[in-house]
Amino acid sequence: MKADHKKVERYLKTARGQIDGILKMMEDDRYCIDISTQLMATIGLLKKANNEILAAHMRSCVLEAVDEENREEKIEEMVKVIDKLAQ
Amino acid sequence: MKADHKKVERYLKTARGQIDGILKMMEDDRYCIDISTQLMATIGLLKKANNEILAAHMRSCVLEAVDEENREEKIEEMVKVIDKLAQ
Amino acid sequence: MKADHKKVERYLKTARGQIDGILKMMEDDRYCIDISTQLMATIGLLKKANNEILAAHMRSCVLEAVDEENREEKIEEMVKVIDKLAQ
Amino acid sequence: MKADHKKVERYLKTARGQIDGILKMMEDDRYCIDISTQLMATIGLLKKANNEILAAHMRSCVLEAVDEENREEKIEEMVKVIDKLAQ
Repeated sequence: MKADHKKVERYLKTARGQIDGILKMMEDDRYCIDISTQLMATIGLLKKANNEILAAHMRSCVLEAVDEENREEKIEEMVKVIDKLAQ
Repeated sequence: MKADHKKVERYLKTARGQIDGILKMMEDDRYCIDISTQLMATIGLLKKANNEILAAHMRSCVLEAVDEENREEKIEEMVKVIDKLAQ
Repeated sequence: MKADHKKVERYLKTARGQIDGILKMMEDDRYCIDISTQLMATIGLLKKANNEILAAHMRSCVLEAVDEENREEKIEEMVKVIDKLAQ
Repeated sequence: MKADHKKVERYLKTARGQIDGILKMMEDDRYCIDISTQLMATIGLLKKANNEILAAHMRSCVLEAVDEENREEKIEEMVKVIDKLAQ
């Protein structure tokens, strides 16, 4: 993976810690909206991690794809990713 | 929290396990798109958990808000949540 | 519809004008990314209009639903809308 | 623009017609949720048009970018688009 491993790792480990926190909030029967708000923050964090990965992928794997055939393959992969993101 | 605790817990614990899996994929320097695809699946799972929480909240806290003032407060909370979701 | 008609109308008429503009950009064979950027701005505008409508609906139809049965119906409608928004 | 002009045009003209329909629904003071549902369908249509444009752009402009510098520029443009889509 081409993205900044440290940065992505930090996002993911923070998100994992937040999920543990949400599980604790559920145990404490905290208010629905407080839990939903935390969950949406965690979703936002994972989206950031995903953006880092896709941006680095575009700037390396897609940009440096050696030959036509390899580049076409990479382009098609990204077309599928973009389609999913745009839903 | 009014949602089905077991169901939401299952989503969250699965998502947490997936994040561990993604961290492992990064260690193994797996391909960017494979990691991104897994991350988007995890985001989808957390969205499902959030939907369960919001639906149960609407069907209990908002529906059963005892008096006018309490109901207005709950409605305003949901207007903010809807605004965030619709971005 | 409970939302501020003037405000929602303005959003919608602006969006319609933008679509005309995009069709003209296509005729002029303008660059893909310029057209996509304009299209995403129009999507953003329609999302704003939708938010206005849903917020006003929550603050009137849902808040003032006269009896239990009517309120339940309104709540279920919003649960479906929230589910779609959260995809 | 590299996308299938006919196809994108059809999406855009349909969306424009739907906006006219929504304006009429507002005049007839139709129910909020009915208007919102139609609006979300129109947003979905514009997203489809955008996907067509981005997919064709990736498969032509990005794929065939002649030299390193030109390709880098195209990649950076797409990184920005992907970031916006992923919000």
